[in-house]
Amino acid sequence: MGEPQRIAVLGPGLLGGSLVRALAPRPDVRLSVWARRREPLDELRAEFPGIGTGLRLEEVVGDADVIVLATPIGVMPALGAELARLQGFCTQAVVTDVGSVKGPVVRRFASLFSGTPLRFVGSHPMAGSEEAGLDAATSDLFDRAVCILTPDTETDADALKRIHTFWETLGCRVRHLDPQEHDRVVARISHLPHAVASILVQAVLDDSPEIAELSGNGLADTTRVASGEVGMWTEILLENREEVLAAFKVASEKLAELVAYLENMDEDMIHAFLEKAKILRDTRIAGNRDT
Amino acid sequence: MGEPQRIAVLGPGLLGGSLVRALAPRPDVRLSVWARRREPLDELRAEFPGIGTGLRLEEVVGDADVIVLATPIGVMPALGAELARLQGFCTQAVVTDVGSVKGPVVRRFASLFSGTPLRFVGSHPMAGSEEAGLDAATSDLFDRAVCILTPDTETDADALKRIHTFWETLGCRVRHLDPQEHDRVVARISHLPHAVASILVQAVLDDSPEIAELSGNGLADTTRVASGEVGMWTEILLENREEVLAAFKVASEKLAELVAYLENMDEDMIHAFLEKAKILRDTRIAGNRDT
Repeated sequence: MGEPQRIAVLGPGLLGGSLVRALAPRPDVRLSVWARRREPLDELRAEFPGIGTGLRLEEVVGDADVIVLATPIGVMPALGAELARLQGFCTQAVVTDVGSVKGPVVRRFASLFSGTPLRFVGSHPMAGSEEAGLDAATSDLFDRAVCILTPDTETDADALKRIHTFWETLGCRVRHLDPQEHDRVVARISHLPHAVASILVQAVLDDSPEIAELSGNGLADTTRVASGEVGMWTEILLENREEVLAAFKVASEKLAELVAYLENMDEDMIHAFLEKAKILRDTRIAGNRDT
Repeated sequence: MGEPQRIAVLGPGLLGGSLVRALAPRPDVRLSVWARRREPLDELRAEFPGIGTGLRLEEVVGDADVIVLATPIGVMPALGAELARLQGFCTQAVVTDVGSVKGPVVRRFASLFSGTPLRFVGSHPMAGSEEAGLDAATSDLFDRAVCILTPDTETDADALKRIHTFWETLGCRVRHLDPQEHDRVVARISHLPHAVASILVQAVLDDSPEIAELSGNGLADTTRVASGEVGMWTEILLENREEVLAAFKVASEKLAELVAYLENMDEDMIHAFLEKAKILRDTRIAGNRDT
């Protein structure tokens, strides 16, 4: 074992806090954590006395090998600009993020870090929960989750390799996608399901919330992600607007298709529609995380 | 403790089998089970040697206090007609079912049992799973689940009370709704979510199933019910067609609303839409089953 790897986590919320709880116990890691407020840092230092913490970036990013931006999307441009200003403190650093939209972020950091020694690689761990914040953070959040990296033609190969290893060591199944392709794919597998869950809650309960009392597990599961953090999801839908609208269009078409079968009482086509969905889910989605 | 209650379960699938597994160990119950095939009956008798079983209805329903129809919807008219023919064997019986649509069923049984001593009370336990069949049946399936009874103005009060107590003893939270109101409500809290899950699977995966490999728990949860039994759900959507179409209409309007906000990049309205859904879900749905 060589030198410990120096890792800086910026923003100890659900994802950042889970990184801290997964990494802090490891002897081959030196961990430091930045937050805007003192409370989460005090909490984490009480839990892991060996970690460094700071309210100022320069106290945390010095000599970092990997800097993980785990803040809300809206804060990232300002943090990126400050990292560029602090480039002399962390000339070896590869910066990554955990955000759900990649095209705009990769372009922004390429521009911010241009002419600095800092290198950026986009990361999107497909892990999360409808809960938010450090209280919900767990050391096994990333275990067996997919993490999508989004290199483009400008991405430094060594930087990509370092971030790939970083997530793999956390137990992730790492995949690479072009940033635009990433945004198209996650609009479907993540952003559309989230929006549909919110639409479904409103359609079911808007004018008669009391009927929820009669519901079973089906409604609870189908709508779970609608309990996610509202500010974060508003940002995500807006940042990935074009791809989300394209996904909505497909969903509207599928909805109209099933409605037409039902209006026509076309039993065979309803059966075929539900069966196709069942087969796709059983073979492609069920147990994806467990395999 | 008085005489044991005689209960006949017709159709030991997920729901009927769960009834058997919950009731068979009880000393105050005499249980008999009917099925079309011998295998599930052999399996249950090996598990609970004290129960009666039979492939012919008259072997099973004799002197029954409660007869539970737990077969597919499609089989129920024929079974109901045969019960009416066997009325002399079970003059005390209150017949109930476990189906997901009630208006047509209540009307059908009122007509079938007219002029017989048999009485019908509709039941809809909001319990189930995307799994089907006796293998998935568990003794605690009904524990803490809501069970909706659907009396109408013709329903015998003693019969209603007997069925109410029956489900309550199984651990259900029993509620009463008029059959038409039941069908309107479950179109929203159960049938629409099911159909939306199937629509979502198709919208996400139809033209690129391989992207499911990248998904997290959100897609798996949101689409879980789409793995349900296709034949049963085709029957349910068709039987409750009018109410399901009305629920689809509301869902389409909500979808169009969110799409419009996104097209206009109206951050405030997107935030308000997601927030309203989150509050409804957090306060009305989350943990409904656990409270």
